[in-house]
Amino acid sequence: MPTEPLTEGAVAAGSQPRWLSDDEQRAWRAYISLAKMLMRQLDRDLQPFGLSTNDYEILVELTEAPGNRLRMTELADVTAQSRSRLSHQITRMEAKGLVRRVACDGDKRGTFAVITPRGLATLERVAPSHVESVRRNFIDHIGHDDLAVLTEAYEPVMARIRMTRGRD
Amino acid sequence: MPTEPLTEGAVAAGSQPRWLSDDEQRAWRAYISLAKMLMRQLDRDLQPFGLSTNDYEILVELTEAPGNRLRMTELADVTAQSRSRLSHQITRMEAKGLVRRVACDGDKRGTFAVITPRGLATLERVAPSHVESVRRNFIDHIGHDDLAVLTEAYEPVMARIRMTRGRD
Repeated sequence: MPTEPLTEGAVAAGSQPRWLSDDEQRAWRAYISLAKMLMRQLDRDLQPFGLSTNDYEILVELTEAPGNRLRMTELADVTAQSRSRLSHQITRMEAKGLVRRVACDGDKRGTFAVITPRGLATLERVAPSHVESVRRNFIDHIGHDDLAVLTEAYEPVMARIRMTRGRD
Repeated sequence: MPTEPLTEGAVAAGSQPRWLSDDEQRAWRAYISLAKMLMRQLDRDLQPFGLSTNDYEILVELTEAPGNRLRMTELADVTAQSRSRLSHQITRMEAKGLVRRVACDGDKRGTFAVITPRGLATLERVAPSHVESVRRNFIDHIGHDDLAVLTEAYEPVMARIRMTRGRD
């Protein structure tokens, strides 16, 4: 998106920003523009099912967790969002009957999010359409070798963001 | 995110979905999880300036257009979102004084979005911090060769989504 000086003025104040090189700039814009477009297209494809990609992400994380549940704090960590943001998201999903909050017995570390039977049924119903959308918009257009390079490149970046993001 | 069968039940109805292979699954989840995390982190880093990544994207597109303006329809195309969604976004940005709508003289094809002097000043003020955030969260962690692979792989996918997305 950003990332090169608009005018000399932008550089004058404070220490010199490390502007991106032309190659870095092109890579970044390809990455972030595609990410935004994909998210919009996937949200659009999920809309008839009453889900967003954020809902889908939460449902998948919960089905993969032991007992189909995760502590809210853990769920915030794996999805790399703030606790307050996740809390709003879970409230919306509770209203749709997809998940519910459950207190942890004898555990002061807080609340679990649990996927409901309706949440599970919704995910099963939506998955075939969603995988087609993922193929059509992304996977089918990228070669096998490039996919491997991308996986190897991204996984460490993800781990790093998970470690360093803000947690409020 | 999704994209493998949860249970046999998910496959039973309708034609067989083309589930992702393990490698595809891993690549897709690396891609989409990182994209969501990055977007959340960049939004967080922009928040003190009163901007979102969507605001930033629009401001950059406008500064790069001739006369710092684009038809709303063109702006929807380059950012690959629906016209109604863009319209809401522009209304929010107008309220902040970052852009304004201008009718096209003698042109029935509608309205331009124009960046205001305040929008331009905001972008110049924010850019150095934003580029640091992009470096810290992404660019500095990916090797030069991998960045080149990413650029070459994504640009055709972007072009395709721009062509095929819904336009309402």
